[in-house]
Amino acid sequence: MTTTLRPDLTPPPLALDPDLTTPFPSSEKVYLRGRLHPDVRVPARRIHQSPTLERVGALTRTRPNPPLLVPDTSGPYTDAAATVDLRTGLTHARPWLARDPRLAAQPGRSHPDLDRSGPLPFPAVPAPRRARPGAAITQLQAARRGEITPEMEFVALRESLRQDEGFDLTHQHPGEAFGAGIPREITPEFVRSEVARGRAVIPANINHPELEPTIIGRNFRVKVNANLGTSIVTSSIEEEVGKMIWATRWGADTVMDLSTGRHIHPTREWILRGSAVPVGTVPIYQALEKVGGVAEELTWDLYRDTLIEQAEQGVDYMTVHAGVRLAHLPLTARRRTGIVSRGGSILAKWCLAHHQENFLYTHFAEMCELLAAYDITFSLGDGLRPGSVEDANDAAQFAELDTLGELTQVAWKRGVQTMIEGPGHVPMQLIRENMTRQLEVCHEAPFYTLGPLTTDIAPGYDHITSAIGAAQIAWYGTAMLCYVTPKEHLGLPDRQDVRDGVIAYRIAAHAADLAKGHPGAQARDNALSKARFEFRWEDQFALGLDPQKARALHDETLPADAAKTAHFCSMCGPQFCSMKLSHDLRAPEVLAGLEAKAQEFRARGSELYVEVGADD
Amino acid sequence: MTTTLRPDLTPPPLALDPDLTTPFPSSEKVYLRGRLHPDVRVPARRIHQSPTLERVGALTRTRPNPPLLVPDTSGPYTDAAATVDLRTGLTHARPWLARDPRLAAQPGRSHPDLDRSGPLPFPAVPAPRRARPGAAITQLQAARRGEITPEMEFVALRESLRQDEGFDLTHQHPGEAFGAGIPREITPEFVRSEVARGRAVIPANINHPELEPTIIGRNFRVKVNANLGTSIVTSSIEEEVGKMIWATRWGADTVMDLSTGRHIHPTREWILRGSAVPVGTVPIYQALEKVGGVAEELTWDLYRDTLIEQAEQGVDYMTVHAGVRLAHLPLTARRRTGIVSRGGSILAKWCLAHHQENFLYTHFAEMCELLAAYDITFSLGDGLRPGSVEDANDAAQFAELDTLGELTQVAWKRGVQTMIEGPGHVPMQLIRENMTRQLEVCHEAPFYTLGPLTTDIAPGYDHITSAIGAAQIAWYGTAMLCYVTPKEHLGLPDRQDVRDGVIAYRIAAHAADLAKGHPGAQARDNALSKARFEFRWEDQFALGLDPQKARALHDETLPADAAKTAHFCSMCGPQFCSMKLSHDLRAPEVLAGLEAKAQEFRARGSELYVEVGADD
Repeated sequence: MTTTLRPDLTPPPLALDPDLTTPFPSSEKVYLRGRLHPDVRVPARRIHQSPTLERVGALTRTRPNPPLLVPDTSGPYTDAAATVDLRTGLTHARPWLARDPRLAAQPGRSHPDLDRSGPLPFPAVPAPRRARPGAAITQLQAARRGEITPEMEFVALRESLRQDEGFDLTHQHPGEAFGAGIPREITPEFVRSEVARGRAVIPANINHPELEPTIIGRNFRVKVNANLGTSIVTSSIEEEVGKMIWATRWGADTVMDLSTGRHIHPTREWILRGSAVPVGTVPIYQALEKVGGVAEELTWDLYRDTLIEQAEQGVDYMTVHAGVRLAHLPLTARRRTGIVSRGGSILAKWCLAHHQENFLYTHFAEMCELLAAYDITFSLGDGLRPGSVEDANDAAQFAELDTLGELTQVAWKRGVQTMIEGPGHVPMQLIRENMTRQLEVCHEAPFYTLGPLTTDIAPGYDHITSAIGAAQIAWYGTAMLCYVTPKEHLGLPDRQDVRDGVIAYRIAAHAADLAKGHPGAQARDNALSKARFEFRWEDQFALGLDPQKARALHDETLPADAAKTAHFCSMCGPQFCSMKLSHDLRAPEVLAGLEAKAQEFRARGSELYVEVGADD
Repeated sequence: MTTTLRPDLTPPPLALDPDLTTPFPSSEKVYLRGRLHPDVRVPARRIHQSPTLERVGALTRTRPNPPLLVPDTSGPYTDAAATVDLRTGLTHARPWLARDPRLAAQPGRSHPDLDRSGPLPFPAVPAPRRARPGAAITQLQAARRGEITPEMEFVALRESLRQDEGFDLTHQHPGEAFGAGIPREITPEFVRSEVARGRAVIPANINHPELEPTIIGRNFRVKVNANLGTSIVTSSIEEEVGKMIWATRWGADTVMDLSTGRHIHPTREWILRGSAVPVGTVPIYQALEKVGGVAEELTWDLYRDTLIEQAEQGVDYMTVHAGVRLAHLPLTARRRTGIVSRGGSILAKWCLAHHQENFLYTHFAEMCELLAAYDITFSLGDGLRPGSVEDANDAAQFAELDTLGELTQVAWKRGVQTMIEGPGHVPMQLIRENMTRQLEVCHEAPFYTLGPLTTDIAPGYDHITSAIGAAQIAWYGTAMLCYVTPKEHLGLPDRQDVRDGVIAYRIAAHAADLAKGHPGAQARDNALSKARFEFRWEDQFALGLDPQKARALHDETLPADAAKTAHFCSMCGPQFCSMKLSHDLRAPEVLAGLEAKAQEFRARGSELYVEVGADD
């Protein structure tokens, strides 16, 4: 496909970066059509495999291997047939929004970009929509009415890809799901019922028509979020938009724009218009910029206006630290690392300065009405999450969690979809308690955790310290994992960090899907292992999470094309390749003789030779 | 320190590589003296910290932070005071061996290097020792006699470093140890009792005097092994010796020399003479080379001679695939990935060709006598481990495990220390069963697992897919983890891969130590988090597992020295640093007012504002 940013930027930073748009090897972009809603088109990636070569005596027979359909979060960028002009945004994946009579088109943005002086204003700002008074438009409200929305059918198809390919589910280990209710088949009706009871959310702002919806809930595939965003110290709009495309290419199901510093509004506009995945934000960051970084000067009115500003741009979910109550703050005073959530520390500072309750808490009901009008999903922030192993599972953390549970019911009462954010830094033996408590006090609202990091001693490798914890908590029931990159605690991630973070978290999420027994989850493992065992190197690369990296590592020692069909690699060499050797076991005549011999042994009771021969 | 390889190599590849020998930042090499055995000198690394700066009104008070003592596997290479000449080998860390009357010095090697034509023969081959007839010299036999050997005192000191520093253990979460019996203090007597009952091993061949002993058992710190070794396709002796030093620098507790192809004997000689950690091998690899790679031509006599050859060189533990019984082979026929253990597939091929029981199994008792004479530890290999998620926990794997349990008792009866190798590829929900079965059928002999990899779909990232599984199985009770590098399945690891693999596994091992509640394990986490919270960047780097990497990532965006004391990093910038903000919470006057306000709230029952203000 072709991408352009601005004609007057030569070269346009994104346009000339094929890394962002090259389709995956052996892969084809396909779209699954909706049945209930014909204009639902669900993107997926079909990976084609080469056939298996079987030796039959002197001859060689080929046996085809079926293509594998895998989830695809990369948007139109990897669609060879698509043309993307970032100046106007992606083609609308949700055309039905324009026809929805319950939505009133506004004359224009209530709070236009105050920062047109910026280096890169967005050229074609779309007019916002808002629910007509009294119209209950959220996915939660629709689900309660028994309505299966296009978004619900969309995510149902997206979740059950493998089953649509008729993949053989018999080759999958039973899972241990800790009480989750994962069905054998994910139907639109099942999606509706999960959304209706608040156990899953579909973050989909009516002002984000470019969105390809996804579902977040413990009975669906575990999702991964990637954080992006400029900071005052470094980065630019081009870089962050590039990172957004990059993150979704490697498998981020959602992104959060955590920009601070200057040009927050236009950065978000470029990201939203170019993003096919849900975009989350933390509105308090922009609010703080508006008061020059002086937390004491924050007010509800200013925050509300910021919220509306972002709502009209199309932000799909918002982190709101309404659980940071004044009464909780003393509980953090003796901590090893105090308050490590940015939003949490900002609000703590405000509460202290005014000796008043958190205004996000006192105005929570009003906030619910606002979010409901755009179908924005709450991500109730854990402002008091532990920032070190020592602070894990302490009184401050769990006091806030209890408050988030109360707020969940308030939000649900007002029809607002809600998920709950979780830690943080937690040693392995304390992870389970986080999940069981959250399920209990937050009534199974989806849990969305940052890691957790299982140790503090590896700065530079926290994508690994946290992938260990993330895989476990996702297995226990967490619905979405917020990635951690190698730069955590050290600096702003660059593209390589984003890639490393996303892949580490795709691994954790998939390991959890396998462990929970998500239907069809093992199909990709089985296909890749079969390709590996049959030395179909190209297929092994293509089926992996990062084909480029796998090929690059292989080619470091064996770059020749011939090696791509060789029955060994440089690790063991031809003589010592166990897989090569064990193929000799597969000849029918060998198996037959083997079985006979084995029976003979078993008949003789397969006694322990060494004992017989032993002279004690 | 200075290192030289060969005078005629200019430049000596190792000598000119400061990466291998530069001491760690802010660190000092110290040696703890034995009390029972005065010539026991246990290496450790003392990390010095800068003081905490406290603002008291207008003044700044400094409060010192105690140094932290951490385990040190890097040998003399990081000792500024040491001189290493690789041509003669490391200074003997076990001088008492030379005085031991139970050991008979042999006139020379029974099987000298047949490959003197090699590029790099070892110059000064030491004469081997062997136990005098009837002398029961193994650590296991000594422990049963109630004897506390120098090796036992050595490892006791090594395990309890932090406690010797009198570190405050009150700041550590209680662990969940799944039935392990970890004492609050690790004494020489406790070490003896664990070795006596076979629950721990101290791999220490009497012909490896350069060794700084370590202990492997579920009640001790989890250990990490790094695999090295040339293959016919690539690498050289210099590279592999360099990798050995490199691996131990980053924290490998043992290394395995898995060399195949040419020059196996001299490669092993250079590695052993230069290695301060236990060295393991898989003798069948060299045996196969001796018969030109034709598995069918292997014989017990040839294998026995190879075993003696390696025993006299000083190999500390040997992987023996004696559990691959003929009767088990049919169980692998329908597997997705057959037999993926090199040794396992070689022996399977032999069994099939001869339709006979595995000669390692039938000669096991004889093998025990040999290993006992040098105090070599068995690592009973899992030749039938699963090579894919689908093959996990299958009949073949567990049939072999049962056999390994029988063989463990045979080895114990003959006084041979024994550990058991484990998988492999195992999805999370099936990991626990591996550990519980192994503890049961192998009578708590130490478990030594490869990963396990929790998914097959990420070639290029298997250090992460497996670190997730390794952390869990180590938590459940595995004593040593064999690392997996990013090159797994793709090629022979280079130095960067070795570093990535070792660090990923140090993370997994430490996460497990924390989860098990190993006394003092949390000290390093607490110190690093305190340094982080106080913006002592240099201390944060120095306390981490990889100071160079942490510093490099930080400096990518903020290279200036000033940034090393700055109260922010480029991730959030000065305005948004939560830790900076939460320091404001710590002022005494703030805390006081806060507590008052909090009491007021609690008095009013801290009711839910939003409910009060809600209009339903």
